Amino acid sequence: MTFDFEKGDGKNKKLLGGKGAGLCEMTRIGLPVPPGFVISTEVCLEYYKEGEKVPKGLMDEVRDHIRTIEKKTGKKFGDTQNPLLVSVRSGAALSMPGMMDTILNLGLNDETVVGLAKQTGDERFIYDCYRRFIQLFSKIAMQADAEKFDKKIEMLRDRSGAKFDTDLTTETLKKIVKEYKGLCKDETGKELPKDPYMQLGMAIEAVFRSWMGRRAVDYRKFNKITSDMANGTAVNIQTMVFGNRGADSATGVAFTRDPGTGENIFYGEYLTNAQGEDVVAGIRTPKPIVEMREELPKSYEELCKVREILEKHYKEIQDFEFTIEKGKLYLLQTRNGKMNAIATIKTSVDMFNEKLLRKDEALLRIRPDQIEQLLHRAIDPRITAKPVATGLAASPGAASGQVVFDADTAAELGSKGEKVIMVREETKPEDIHGFFAAQGVLTSRGGKTSHAAVVARGMGKPCVSGCEQIKIDSHLRLFTIGEKSIKEAEIITIDGSTGSVYVGDIPTVEPELPKELEQILQWADEKRKLGVRANADTPEDARKARKFGAEGIGLCRTERMFNAVDRLPIVQKMILAESEDERAECLSKLLPIQKNDFVEIFKAMNGLPVTVRLLDPPLHEFLPSMEGLLREITDMKAKNLDTKQKEEIFRKVKGLAEVNPMMGHRGVRLGITNPEIYEMQIRAIIEAAADLIKQGYDVKPEIMIPQVSMASELNSVKQNLERISQEIMKNSGVHVKYSFGTMMEVVRSCLTASKIAEYVEFFSFGTNDLTQGTFSFSREDAENKFLPRYLDQGILAFNPFETLDKEGVGRLMRIDIEDGRRKQTNLKVGICGEHGGDPESVRFCSTLGLNYVSCSVYRVVIARLAAGQEVVKAHDL
Amino acid sequence: MTFDFEKGDGKNKKLLGGKGAGLCEMTRIGLPVPPGFVISTEVCLEYYKEGEKVPKGLMDEVRDHIRTIEKKTGKKFGDTQNPLLVSVRSGAALSMPGMMDTILNLGLNDETVVGLAKQTGDERFIYDCYRRFIQLFSKIAMQADAEKFDKKIEMLRDRSGAKFDTDLTTETLKKIVKEYKGLCKDETGKELPKDPYMQLGMAIEAVFRSWMGRRAVDYRKFNKITSDMANGTAVNIQTMVFGNRGADSATGVAFTRDPGTGENIFYGEYLTNAQGEDVVAGIRTPKPIVEMREELPKSYEELCKVREILEKHYKEIQDFEFTIEKGKLYLLQTRNGKMNAIATIKTSVDMFNEKLLRKDEALLRIRPDQIEQLLHRAIDPRITAKPVATGLAASPGAASGQVVFDADTAAELGSKGEKVIMVREETKPEDIHGFFAAQGVLTSRGGKTSHAAVVARGMGKPCVSGCEQIKIDSHLRLFTIGEKSIKEAEIITIDGSTGSVYVGDIPTVEPELPKELEQILQWADEKRKLGVRANADTPEDARKARKFGAEGIGLCRTERMFNAVDRLPIVQKMILAESEDERAECLSKLLPIQKNDFVEIFKAMNGLPVTVRLLDPPLHEFLPSMEGLLREITDMKAKNLDTKQKEEIFRKVKGLAEVNPMMGHRGVRLGITNPEIYEMQIRAIIEAAADLIKQGYDVKPEIMIPQVSMASELNSVKQNLERISQEIMKNSGVHVKYSFGTMMEVVRSCLTASKIAEYVEFFSFGTNDLTQGTFSFSREDAENKFLPRYLDQGILAFNPFETLDKEGVGRLMRIDIEDGRRKQTNLKVGICGEHGGDPESVRFCSTLGLNYVSCSVYRVVIARLAAGQEVVKAHDL
Repeated sequence: MTFDFEKGDGKNKKLLGGKGAGLCEMTRIGLPVPPGFVISTEVCLEYYKEGEKVPKGLMDEVRDHIRTIEKKTGKKFGDTQNPLLVSVRSGAALSMPGMMDTILNLGLNDETVVGLAKQTGDERFIYDCYRRFIQLFSKIAMQADAEKFDKKIEMLRDRSGAKFDTDLTTETLKKIVKEYKGLCKDETGKELPKDPYMQLGMAIEAVFRSWMGRRAVDYRKFNKITSDMANGTAVNIQTMVFGNRGADSATGVAFTRDPGTGENIFYGEYLTNAQGEDVVAGIRTPKPIVEMREELPKSYEELCKVREILEKHYKEIQDFEFTIEKGKLYLLQTRNGKMNAIATIKTSVDMFNEKLLRKDEALLRIRPDQIEQLLHRAIDPRITAKPVATGLAASPGAASGQVVFDADTAAELGSKGEKVIMVREETKPEDIHGFFAAQGVLTSRGGKTSHAAVVARGMGKPCVSGCEQIKIDSHLRLFTIGEKSIKEAEIITIDGSTGSVYVGDIPTVEPELPKELEQILQWADEKRKLGVRANADTPEDARKARKFGAEGIGLCRTERMFNAVDRLPIVQKMILAESEDERAECLSKLLPIQKNDFVEIFKAMNGLPVTVRLLDPPLHEFLPSMEGLLREITDMKAKNLDTKQKEEIFRKVKGLAEVNPMMGHRGVRLGITNPEIYEMQIRAIIEAAADLIKQGYDVKPEIMIPQVSMASELNSVKQNLERISQEIMKNSGVHVKYSFGTMMEVVRSCLTASKIAEYVEFFSFGTNDLTQGTFSFSREDAENKFLPRYLDQGILAFNPFETLDKEGVGRLMRIDIEDGRRKQTNLKVGICGEHGGDPESVRFCSTLGLNYVSCSVYRVVIARLAAGQEVVKAHDL
Repeated sequence: MTFDFEKGDGKNKKLLGGKGAGLCEMTRIGLPVPPGFVISTEVCLEYYKEGEKVPKGLMDEVRDHIRTIEKKTGKKFGDTQNPLLVSVRSGAALSMPGMMDTILNLGLNDETVVGLAKQTGDERFIYDCYRRFIQLFSKIAMQADAEKFDKKIEMLRDRSGAKFDTDLTTETLKKIVKEYKGLCKDETGKELPKDPYMQLGMAIEAVFRSWMGRRAVDYRKFNKITSDMANGTAVNIQTMVFGNRGADSATGVAFTRDPGTGENIFYGEYLTNAQGEDVVAGIRTPKPIVEMREELPKSYEELCKVREILEKHYKEIQDFEFTIEKGKLYLLQTRNGKMNAIATIKTSVDMFNEKLLRKDEALLRIRPDQIEQLLHRAIDPRITAKPVATGLAASPGAASGQVVFDADTAAELGSKGEKVIMVREETKPEDIHGFFAAQGVLTSRGGKTSHAAVVARGMGKPCVSGCEQIKIDSHLRLFTIGEKSIKEAEIITIDGSTGSVYVGDIPTVEPELPKELEQILQWADEKRKLGVRANADTPEDARKARKFGAEGIGLCRTERMFNAVDRLPIVQKMILAESEDERAECLSKLLPIQKNDFVEIFKAMNGLPVTVRLLDPPLHEFLPSMEGLLREITDMKAKNLDTKQKEEIFRKVKGLAEVNPMMGHRGVRLGITNPEIYEMQIRAIIEAAADLIKQGYDVKPEIMIPQVSMASELNSVKQNLERISQEIMKNSGVHVKYSFGTMMEVVRSCLTASKIAEYVEFFSFGTNDLTQGTFSFSREDAENKFLPRYLDQGILAFNPFETLDKEGVGRLMRIDIEDGRRKQTNLKVGICGEHGGDPESVRFCSTLGLNYVSCSVYRVVIARLAAGQEVVKAHDL
């Protein structure tokens, strides 16, 4: 399984690796590539299958290929007069820059070096190559300690009075060669092999080995590269060419368009009389590619042609490497150019306009998750500030503000118009008013789906979570990072797109959506069948959602309204009420407030549906914590204060406490045992709708019940709903057309969907809770305790709270939809919650035939794109 | 839909009601039944369908039937000379004694009473009938207040100097009749109708109405009688006969065999010259039926024939009512006799031996849950003690002991051989050592599936739960019941079969299993395909389980071993260990202890499989509670003691604390993050097995992993298991044949059974957790917060933690079994946990094709019976 560059299939990256495929393809379309061949990835897999042994027959094939190269180049491997030198490079199906090994100048030994010196007339150059070869080969093929070589050359350089390696004289280089050979022997116990074929065999094996090297394995794990995506590395063996043979020689890297802006200009850098690694070393500053027009006009013209050929051929921006040896241009690599979101968007639209791409192709080029970075405020790119700590990029966007350590202080300062960043170990539902007030949130614990992350994303506020470097001392009201300590009220800036934390007020800039994005979203909208709605709890969010193209609100959480600063005391009084009357009084105070919330949201969404979820969390979430109360009581006792009242509250809070609140007295369970709460909410919704209809608005309320596990629960709530709505319609004389639906977030409701469908017009998957129920994972506990380990050990391939688990949760969804629609063909099925904004999950929802996804406001754009792309892809299949 | 007794289908209780069917059947087989007819239950349903209106045409049919009766009896309805009187009785498909209404002597009015007085020559008798009729009719058909009638007769009786109603003279009775008629008018605004047909129409409607009366509705709810079982009541209209017409008249009730012992003797009571209600009134003491042989020899002989005919015909013990009017015997009702467990068992075996029943029929006669009462110690039936409080009968059996209020005291006293009853508000996993030490448990909170109930049942110890009358003051070390207070160390007795709590040491008796039960269980064993195993954690339980016929241990919980008094400190030290070494040291101390546990259990189950579940609960369950620690620290601070160490423990406990521990860091999750714990347990199991095999024992260990949601989890544990077991086998030179399996208690594992089946030899359903996950109900929170309300409102028809939810959980189980067996045809599938001992759930498991159920030791017998019966029933269908 080895292929001459002329024979390899340039489309088959899986077999030839990215680099090998590129070399074959370029050879095939007539571009100047130094002769060579590829050992396929399958040989690498064979190597591991055989217990790390080079497969039989491989070296015979290699010899044949070398002979072909010898014929093409007129050089001979190991020849003392006109020796052939080759490079040996790794190359997997996916680019893994710097993760695997490369050996250059292979074929040099004490005899060939002499021949080459004579032939090139440049003894210094060739000894420089030789010492580089020895160091690289010893390290990579013979596992010698590279550092020792570095120390050695440093010592000899210093002793010779040279400043840089480039200052080394031929004599010194010869001495280094000699010392290096000794060092290799000392370090590895073996002589550096002289036989070029032996060198080549060892180099090939070294490349194979590097596939399972620590760096490469970690890289694949970190980047979630599975064996489906890249399995084994190919080995590319290619005639050496040199860009350091004088003023008519050069080396460089170029993009067919500007990868930063997407502009259709030739973009790149080069250095004359240099080798690739000189560019990397940073000793000389490379020149912009346009300067080549003056300096090497013939080569520049050739390169411009190459640029055109490559883009036309690949229909994609190419990132390619070239070397000019004594006026002759060689291409050493080409691959698709990595671009930021803006460039990807611009080039997609441009290439469509240039007829290089069809609309579908242009649409598919943008990864939906790339768009995220465009939607939020960012650190001003002109500023170079150094972060003091880094956590997880939990909710994108950048924000500055005073440090506060609790939600109450945040709310207090926030109400005065001050900007604050809430800094906590972790957040809880009772901190919600702090989120409202803060510009952003920083936590020292918790993952990307921790409470802080989820809530912040839902609100579109920046959040850095799990920033373990910061240690919070809430007593002293400060946090420390190493020796540094930051006090309350000091200003910090966080960047939730990168996870960075800065001290001070770092300027940020408002995002500007590139105009081409609108074009692409329009293409996506033309394609997609899946509706896209937003999760929004406030009129501001509703308006923003509309702006991003949301076709309605799929989840309006009423508990966030309960938590607002002006209402929480009433809510708490209602919960702690001693009598039915007292409770009724509190609810009657809440009614006009809730009603007004709905009036504002319905107005903002005039003409579009708004799904309101009735109260979901357990009541104790609105009360102070037991531990806090207990500590308070202790303090009060120490001061001889009367604790009777506090003890009474403690007793009640304890009475409401639950062992597993996630599966406790909440949602519809609460709605049934305490029907007065849902009744108040239903009244607020229907009255708000009736008022607005009178004023000429088009209101489409959808009432949704959380935590349903049985059809009988829905039946019970529905009876109350019908009674109240009929009463209001009768009194107001207005007909309110509402629809009634259920969250699908309890396993049992999915399993009994055909019964449940009898009572409702819509289902909305709450896949966060459904994932919890399906896995028996409590999200918060899982993320703090075992999920990281599971991901690390590969027990889980991905975090099921970020991306839908198709196998388990997805199967339940499928059962649910099939049974539900069989019973009621018009049933509307959606999904709300975090997964609704995850591109992979959106695609899955599209496959399942959902009517819509609903996601946080900022992810609406992402969902639109992902849904449109899915249709194109499905069509392609 | 009305039927003459000669025409009705005596098998169709659903249509004719139990009483009507019995009357028709007896008429058909030639027994002397006074002529009459039945209005079917369908007419009652029609009545409600029409909005509580008597269906058209009904009264025409009734008139036809009355004319038929008139022909048969020669009497005439409403005739002044020879009037016909009838009774109007309700009768649903299921017996609901006393819940619905009956009117006797209908047809009396001011004219017919005179005719009858003449005809019978007994004026007093007939006016007594008349006044009874007026009172009953006014109350039932005209909704008058019955109490007013009672007061009236009381007054007139007192005034006339009579002591009992029987002492009333004819004159007084006539006066009462007059006053009653006036009272009826005053109370209802209407005259008592004279027209017998009007009386009859009103009486029929009253019976229909009584079906939805408060009493009847509550009765059906309480007894879980659904509309499938009984829907609507029939109305039986029958010629009146009188047992109070002199010394040759009598009335009585008889059983064809003794319902208390099951002995084949004629059993019953009678009164001469009496009506049915005289027996109930208790003024005269009825005589045993044998005395009739002397007193009314002819009638006795007739009755003995009836007894024989009835039993042969019904193939069931009959409970029948009769009246003898002037020497002539009439049968008024027959139904299957209600018997206690012992009688049911004895009669089954007897009737099989007498060839009255086939084996299958005999086997089906015993309700499995009836057997429960036979398996436990009971209060000595010769003692008449009055309970001081009553809670829920949570775990059967009776026990006495000193009151203790915490597990530590229980353990301390228990270790000294003292008998204690642990009394707590509710129990928690950390109280487990208290359960081991106590004779029984009494809690003031929690239902029949609360922690206390489940653990006690698992151990076969008596438990009374949710005894809300008792108020515990753990500070004063006492509990109160109203004014009464019981201090620690006082003796109490609890009866978990009835829920009764007694003060003092009430003698109890050891249960004696009737010898016939063995016979019946043998029949069940012949039939059943479902295996029956026991849940047992100790050698004693294992031995007991074998005695009850368990075919292995289906669940041996290792955490109970961790909780034992001598181990808990080591376990806690292990959890709190600062270093890997310290933890390893603790585990190495636990290893020999665990190993010995297994040695003893394997010995006891020699030749039978033992399924050992590796550690399941989260580690914090083994540590003190946060609240307790916090209070301790507060106390210590008040005393100026050094709290540093406690604070450190508090910090650790807090670190381990979880938001939803049920779905947290436990089971296999813990096994993967802390592999050293499972490794120790695996080592203990395999080493124990190896040692015993060397000694010649036949050991069949099955290693079971809890909380699995993904195949990858099992893969990870399996690798460790194989490594360790191979190492032990190599070192010991013994081959240990073990099998590897998983709990099926997480929804996702059911949904991905085909993948999971690749790694295991068996599945064992943990339907408690599976029910929690499917409903999103946290059992403890549900039972304390909303489950009672759900059951009360009929949102749930049954408690899914007691009886398997076939629709939801059952569907998951079906998916799981089908997918699992498709992948691996030999897959063994069982169920362990509470549902495994619930007869209804056992039947369902049999239908699903499970290999075995495993239940608490005492329920093994119940499961054997239920499983055998299910096969017979399935065969019948």
